[in-house]
Amino acid sequence: MNQRVTLITLGYRDFERARDFYTGLGWKIGWTDDDVIFFQAGDMIFAVWDRAKLAEDSGVQDSGGWGGVTLGHNVRTVKEVDDILERATAAGATIARAGDRRPWGGYSGIFVDPEGHPWEVAQNPAWTVHDDGSVSLD
Amino acid sequence: MNQRVTLITLGYRDFERARDFYTGLGWKIGWTDDDVIFFQAGDMIFAVWDRAKLAEDSGVQDSGGWGGVTLGHNVRTVKEVDDILERATAAGATIARAGDRRPWGGYSGIFVDPEGHPWEVAQNPAWTVHDDGSVSLD
Repeated sequence: MNQRVTLITLGYRDFERARDFYTGLGWKIGWTDDDVIFFQAGDMIFAVWDRAKLAEDSGVQDSGGWGGVTLGHNVRTVKEVDDILERATAAGATIARAGDRRPWGGYSGIFVDPEGHPWEVAQNPAWTVHDDGSVSLD
Repeated sequence: MNQRVTLITLGYRDFERARDFYTGLGWKIGWTDDDVIFFQAGDMIFAVWDRAKLAEDSGVQDSGGWGGVTLGHNVRTVKEVDDILERATAAGATIARAGDRRPWGGYSGIFVDPEGHPWEVAQNPAWTVHDDGSVSLD
């Protein structure tokens, strides 16, 4: 199995809220209908879809809250972390942890999207963020 | 905000089980300690970390089950879908939906990793899977 995730689908309860949040971050919709949105995200696809349909399609029970997955967005500077947290807040996120220095040597904060999905925005000096935004361990 | 996810972290309750499952898929560890594993996954990082620590770090309450996130792995052929579902089963996954034709025109199945995280393995004729495994909407 190729060592890749090619699709992340986040479940939503309110389509317009989910759409407005991610487009509010400045993201451009790649494809949509009344139900699903696909965003091209680097070399993979990021999707939002009705949470009940996603649970059924995935063959799982929905426990209703957070289920053990956190997404991350790595940038190069502390200022970018703070700017993104501010933009996410303006778009409707709540801040679960303001930007601060972390024990692992970087700087990060957490925003939680309007559907309860947390994102860590981080400047991690141990990893390389390339010009196109891709990230390498090293 | 750059239109990318650069890190996905899955929470686990049993470190060895999580490690053995993902390495059992043939994935190579990029960095690890006693607690976390980072895999280079295309142009992003895939991580597993203690679920309670991840919840605390993410500033969220853990509802204990699935929380509205499903990962995907796109391939080019039906045979690859079936082969990956078989390999995932051998590595300790359960099959939530066997490979079959889907209403959207492709073929997919769902495996659920030993920690309850579902993955859809799919052949989607509407998307392009490039030689390196990256995926484009088109």
